[in-house]
Amino acid sequence: MDIEKTLQDLIPDNMLRRSETTLESLLSPIRNVLHQRKMPLDSFTDLQIELLLKVLSSMDTDKDLGAARVGEREGRVVSPYVEHLAAGFNHGIGRSGHLTAPQPKAPGASLMQQAANQVALDAMRKFGLHNVHSGIVFPLSTGMTIAISLSALRREKGVKRVLFPRIDHASPKRGIELSGLETITTSTTLEGDAVQADLGDLEREISKNHDIAILATTTFFPPRTPDPIKEIAKMCQAHDIPLVVNNAYGVQSTSIMKTISSAIDAGKVDVIIQSGDKNFMTPVGSAIAVSPDEEIMQWISETYAGRASAAPVVQTFAALLAHGLKGYEALRNQQVESKTRLEKRMTEIASDLGQRILDVNNEIAVAMTLDGIDANDLGGRLYNRRVTGPRAIEAGEYGSCIDGYPHSYIVMNAAIGASKNDVENATTKLYKEASSHTGTT
Amino acid sequence: MDIEKTLQDLIPDNMLRRSETTLESLLSPIRNVLHQRKMPLDSFTDLQIELLLKVLSSMDTDKDLGAARVGEREGRVVSPYVEHLAAGFNHGIGRSGHLTAPQPKAPGASLMQQAANQVALDAMRKFGLHNVHSGIVFPLSTGMTIAISLSALRREKGVKRVLFPRIDHASPKRGIELSGLETITTSTTLEGDAVQADLGDLEREISKNHDIAILATTTFFPPRTPDPIKEIAKMCQAHDIPLVVNNAYGVQSTSIMKTISSAIDAGKVDVIIQSGDKNFMTPVGSAIAVSPDEEIMQWISETYAGRASAAPVVQTFAALLAHGLKGYEALRNQQVESKTRLEKRMTEIASDLGQRILDVNNEIAVAMTLDGIDANDLGGRLYNRRVTGPRAIEAGEYGSCIDGYPHSYIVMNAAIGASKNDVENATTKLYKEASSHTGTT
Amino acid sequence: MDIEKTLQDLIPDNMLRRSETTLESLLSPIRNVLHQRKMPLDSFTDLQIELLLKVLSSMDTDKDLGAARVGEREGRVVSPYVEHLAAGFNHGIGRSGHLTAPQPKAPGASLMQQAANQVALDAMRKFGLHNVHSGIVFPLSTGMTIAISLSALRREKGVKRVLFPRIDHASPKRGIELSGLETITTSTTLEGDAVQADLGDLEREISKNHDIAILATTTFFPPRTPDPIKEIAKMCQAHDIPLVVNNAYGVQSTSIMKTISSAIDAGKVDVIIQSGDKNFMTPVGSAIAVSPDEEIMQWISETYAGRASAAPVVQTFAALLAHGLKGYEALRNQQVESKTRLEKRMTEIASDLGQRILDVNNEIAVAMTLDGIDANDLGGRLYNRRVTGPRAIEAGEYGSCIDGYPHSYIVMNAAIGASKNDVENATTKLYKEASSHTGTT
Amino acid sequence: MDIEKTLQDLIPDNMLRRSETTLESLLSPIRNVLHQRKMPLDSFTDLQIELLLKVLSSMDTDKDLGAARVGEREGRVVSPYVEHLAAGFNHGIGRSGHLTAPQPKAPGASLMQQAANQVALDAMRKFGLHNVHSGIVFPLSTGMTIAISLSALRREKGVKRVLFPRIDHASPKRGIELSGLETITTSTTLEGDAVQADLGDLEREISKNHDIAILATTTFFPPRTPDPIKEIAKMCQAHDIPLVVNNAYGVQSTSIMKTISSAIDAGKVDVIIQSGDKNFMTPVGSAIAVSPDEEIMQWISETYAGRASAAPVVQTFAALLAHGLKGYEALRNQQVESKTRLEKRMTEIASDLGQRILDVNNEIAVAMTLDGIDANDLGGRLYNRRVTGPRAIEAGEYGSCIDGYPHSYIVMNAAIGASKNDVENATTKLYKEASSHTGTT
Repeated sequence: MDIEKTLQDLIPDNMLRRSETTLESLLSPIRNVLHQRKMPLDSFTDLQIELLLKVLSSMDTDKDLGAARVGEREGRVVSPYVEHLAAGFNHGIGRSGHLTAPQPKAPGASLMQQAANQVALDAMRKFGLHNVHSGIVFPLSTGMTIAISLSALRREKGVKRVLFPRIDHASPKRGIELSGLETITTSTTLEGDAVQADLGDLEREISKNHDIAILATTTFFPPRTPDPIKEIAKMCQAHDIPLVVNNAYGVQSTSIMKTISSAIDAGKVDVIIQSGDKNFMTPVGSAIAVSPDEEIMQWISETYAGRASAAPVVQTFAALLAHGLKGYEALRNQQVESKTRLEKRMTEIASDLGQRILDVNNEIAVAMTLDGIDANDLGGRLYNRRVTGPRAIEAGEYGSCIDGYPHSYIVMNAAIGASKNDVENATTKLYKEASSHTGTT
Repeated sequence: MDIEKTLQDLIPDNMLRRSETTLESLLSPIRNVLHQRKMPLDSFTDLQIELLLKVLSSMDTDKDLGAARVGEREGRVVSPYVEHLAAGFNHGIGRSGHLTAPQPKAPGASLMQQAANQVALDAMRKFGLHNVHSGIVFPLSTGMTIAISLSALRREKGVKRVLFPRIDHASPKRGIELSGLETITTSTTLEGDAVQADLGDLEREISKNHDIAILATTTFFPPRTPDPIKEIAKMCQAHDIPLVVNNAYGVQSTSIMKTISSAIDAGKVDVIIQSGDKNFMTPVGSAIAVSPDEEIMQWISETYAGRASAAPVVQTFAALLAHGLKGYEALRNQQVESKTRLEKRMTEIASDLGQRILDVNNEIAVAMTLDGIDANDLGGRLYNRRVTGPRAIEAGEYGSCIDGYPHSYIVMNAAIGASKNDVENATTKLYKEASSHTGTT
Repeated sequence: MDIEKTLQDLIPDNMLRRSETTLESLLSPIRNVLHQRKMPLDSFTDLQIELLLKVLSSMDTDKDLGAARVGEREGRVVSPYVEHLAAGFNHGIGRSGHLTAPQPKAPGASLMQQAANQVALDAMRKFGLHNVHSGIVFPLSTGMTIAISLSALRREKGVKRVLFPRIDHASPKRGIELSGLETITTSTTLEGDAVQADLGDLEREISKNHDIAILATTTFFPPRTPDPIKEIAKMCQAHDIPLVVNNAYGVQSTSIMKTISSAIDAGKVDVIIQSGDKNFMTPVGSAIAVSPDEEIMQWISETYAGRASAAPVVQTFAALLAHGLKGYEALRNQQVESKTRLEKRMTEIASDLGQRILDVNNEIAVAMTLDGIDANDLGGRLYNRRVTGPRAIEAGEYGSCIDGYPHSYIVMNAAIGASKNDVENATTKLYKEASSHTGTT
Repeated sequence: MDIEKTLQDLIPDNMLRRSETTLESLLSPIRNVLHQRKMPLDSFTDLQIELLLKVLSSMDTDKDLGAARVGEREGRVVSPYVEHLAAGFNHGIGRSGHLTAPQPKAPGASLMQQAANQVALDAMRKFGLHNVHSGIVFPLSTGMTIAISLSALRREKGVKRVLFPRIDHASPKRGIELSGLETITTSTTLEGDAVQADLGDLEREISKNHDIAILATTTFFPPRTPDPIKEIAKMCQAHDIPLVVNNAYGVQSTSIMKTISSAIDAGKVDVIIQSGDKNFMTPVGSAIAVSPDEEIMQWISETYAGRASAAPVVQTFAALLAHGLKGYEALRNQQVESKTRLEKRMTEIASDLGQRILDVNNEIAVAMTLDGIDANDLGGRLYNRRVTGPRAIEAGEYGSCIDGYPHSYIVMNAAIGASKNDVENATTKLYKEASSHTGTT
């Protein structure tokens, strides 16, 4: 818009220059994102995000007031509010089963998606995975993105079965199943309080099977520890096995990111998949997949069957811009503080109740024993007391990633975005509920 | 909110009664949808839709100002605008790979999704499939929903391969592939201008293979005709073969819906899948799957790996309410008129250019021969002239669903939502571009 | 934003050109409004209006991310939603009691307001007042804008009292009072059914008083007829008296507009004031003042005491663009049809009930006698039956603009924006309620 | 909405209870505001504000889907976005020149406005004026609200002229003029650096004139000091003179509020008027008038000529709720800190440049001499350097509220909402620009 000329007749010169300064401060980060496709240093304001999305969605052909639309799919929407629910990206993303292909009816959505992918890749590189080279924001859960990735590996590399160091979590298992591959769960061992992947068993299964891939996990609840990605990556390189890393909420942890990065250097990692919402405070429903190898990402991008909802990609793009590098670093620092506070509080409570903190290395969560306490009941009571998120497990039950784990326990998380207040409030209620329990048992 | 008492002190009695009338006219359709879960008779206004969604999303625990949140996934969002992009449904839908299970952190989203499913089911019943009994709105494309459905059938019924009467379309094929099943494409035959599924070949493949399912298609571009669903359903019943029907944009056609319904009565149909956007003018990215059999839908609901974005479900729910039964019937009538107009215009053009309309039964699209005209070039010119959606195919090329189709041709669609203006404008441009072509060839 | 270069690396050339076409179709009307300041021919879409307002509000200094703000008034807002309620124009409009002066902190709002004024002026010229030359959109009611105008005339022309041909309406009287001037109401006469300004009385008061202005009215309810503006304008010219015309909802009527225009040519008209909402379907709270004389509008613009809310101006600007010339003409035509329909229906009802239509020239409203019917009660019953807007007056009571008017009557309006349904529905209910009344009296 | 029953069939019991807790935490503050009409203790979230406004605006008759609308003013709006700009309050507020009268077509807007008035009154009482008993939020600037108030006093108390201790500010003077009253500016005196109202001159004018009111001022830029309200209130009581206090941005200062309150106790204060935006971070365009005397507010409410825009009232209501008592107290504390920081920085700069801080009591602003520096030029340079709000005045020029003030000086404000960053950034730039000036002079 040539606003400058218009203004010149009308508004005093210094006001004009001043308004250009204002517009420039507002628009230049937007322009930079479109040109450079980098994660911005500073947080975008909501106004900046909205302007960016409005301009992009306005480029799609369904906004063309002079268009004649005679296809069976034309981005028509029934009412303004329904369009608004899609931020104007009525055409979705992708083309005929190629998720990242430009869609002729939707140049704006195509550009949005490519910018989202490149900003997400840049973010992942800056947050620790400097050695990945391609990335895609998926409008799908982490588990579905695992399914899509494994399906691509079946098509291109002939994978038929997946070795999966045991994690007691339904989603990744369903991901493997959905892609039509066989799951071979490998065992875990107990080291002190910690439950660890049994690398010996993994090696045995590698030698016994062929046409395999490995699905390893970096983040889960204690007492389970992260899989030793570097060692597994080396095995994968030695045996030329594709390795998919489920890094569900690992971006928030600099040490987990460093481990994965060194695994890429030391061995072979094919795809690393992370949740949008668990790492970047987006609404649930997106994942970011990255790879050191562009060809692999290309395969994966050709595996979604159809054209997809733009909404989860838009939400993730917006969230990345709303953070900026500085904002995200600040949140990471806050997460470390929250974790320290959580550990301190739970240690005090444990000591008071005659329990103890499980001695398990975990960057995000803390587990306290509940020996002699009814864990299921405690969990229910905390839910009703408005504490969401704690995970209370009975000794020996499913959830500990090993058979016969000797303790009942409760896990709380100091995940990214948790406030001081969350930690204080939750631990206070834990103390109340657990001590009244202790009394009544 | 007990506004009534508040008002009584303040506002004259008759004004008060009058405002209750207004509120009632606004809120009673909302209440009815939540209680009865039926497709409403009248269109919802955008205000009604927005109020409904705001109340529902406000029930999720991330809106609880007194909550203590110590999970790794808590519906936290980085900024108000990012939340706004999800209409407040930050927790997405589903629970641990069970797409329709209530999510304790998100009672509002759970309720929204169940209402969406039931309203969509009711809509499908009222739009012609009176004999289906269960339905789910998927936050996925039609092709992905095919994949999920087939994967469920593999898990529960041991399906290993899929017979697929040839359709030249990438998405359903990728859907079969993604689920890890083998695709057996069965052949088509040429009857006059029409390309039809070869039932003889289909029967042969049924007898040669086991552990099979069939994926049949009701809507595609001429010269391809709809698959004879009733005959196929009878075969499926005779041989106890699961049948998935890709009814991509068939809801707009009463005759297609009637055919499917009679196929359910006459034989065996397991799942019918339709596109959200192509039938209901939602943004791209959702599908509605329905079945006469509740158990099958239950299986399918347990196949998505993880928790999904609520956005495509919300958009589809909103679009259904924005239509209402009356509004949708009016659009269907308008579609029939548009189709008639399109056929008339294209017949005139064909006659003028020495071409003819392909004699193929199709409820939505019309195809005209382009003998002696460069189809690819014409398609490109129309795109640049702002006509979106026509499909121009060279004689013998991929796209006609048969090898060696004898004509080049162009297809235009009078799909639901297309305006009189779209048809007039597009055919005028077609005439101009095609006649100048004729000249230059 | 230089999106073009960005796109070139990324998106196929023809898609790129196509998206430029789309953006151009969207943005060129916006650019034209900013450059030419004319009422657009075609309706703006809501997306176009929103984009225009976002860009303009983004130019204000409170959006400058690098600004240091150390004034007592800096456009700070407490939350995003509060800002949203002002469409981002946090600084309001005007500067130190000069409503149209550019505000250095708010170049965007200044530009918005100037564009609003010029578009409104152009609209008024095209809708019939081709001989006005200056115009301002006021963030005030019609009555307040009358007050402001009269106050300016007192300051600049020494006006001390206002001759006001009797209209039974509180707002203009309060406008005169607020400005501190004396009101001299001149009498009306009864001609058949019609109540008319008594020009003889007006002339007498002119000759008896000095330092006077006249406030004449073009639109009121029957039986009152419009003031004979042309004759009054001639008197004003003869005696050099300022004339303010309250043209509250006259823009919708081509004949009223023509009359005013010919009055300007034939005599002297200083200011013509019209309601935003009654003519242009904006929310209540704005008025448009125009004048053949730029100096007078300049005086008036310097009379608002302080800086004003931008909201009513933004709403009016948006509404004008949402109409476009074509849209507004269509609404005017619809108004004429509605008036005809209303007259027909009420004539039928009157005949049925033994009443008659008052024989009064009025472009918008129709009045039917209620002889022998309790008018107040009928009014109340219609309100409770959800009919809003009818005006039921008892014989002889305040409201008829004359003492002792011989009929009770009810007035209904076919104002701009009223639908066929409004007219049918309201007259049906009138018939029911009035006939049951007749019965019970 | 009876969501509870609906949920019971569907969602597990404990989830249901939990969602009620969430809804309750969200809705109970809304219910409380409607019932109790008090300023809430805690900040409302934007979601809470939006829900409240949506429910209220939904009660107006223009939302009644079954209404027949046959008035000339029916709250019709041309497009959804235009309605959105008014937050749905299309009918505005007030009735026929009575600003606070319930409007039959708009019960929701009427209720909204009454709640806004009562919450604003409660806020003013809690922020220091515990002895006021009636209040109205005006959709007008402070100056216009002064005009409306004085006009009411003329009508009801026969006021003809206004004594105005000199303030060099256009808006209040235009307010007096607009209402048609005569302004008698009383003189100021210089005490050290400070410019003060000359009470002796004020007393002389009181004795010389009759039918007078006084307009006194609490907040202006140094070197002007606040008027001694308590002494003036005593004079007003002694002579039975109406007193209007222009407390433009005094709410942020506890000491100014305490002074006014004690003036009410000790003497006679009729109306106290404060800016919405300057005190409560609303968009520009509203004022809050309060009085110890309900009758006076009643008079004032009957002075606006017509029906007014709801937008400024809605914005102010929303802003009050967004603050809450706690939030506003925190901002007040922050303001005190900012003022201290500003004073410290400017003292350092002054010392460095050979200037000094003017010794004037002011709660919000700090003034530094600019002896030997071109003040106008410095002001312009700071504007271009993106510092908004400083006020640079040449010695002896208009602005100091006295003739021949001996210093040039610059004023900066640490007003409510100013951040630490604003102060640091602005003073840094002041230092740079002023020292380069010093060099070049």
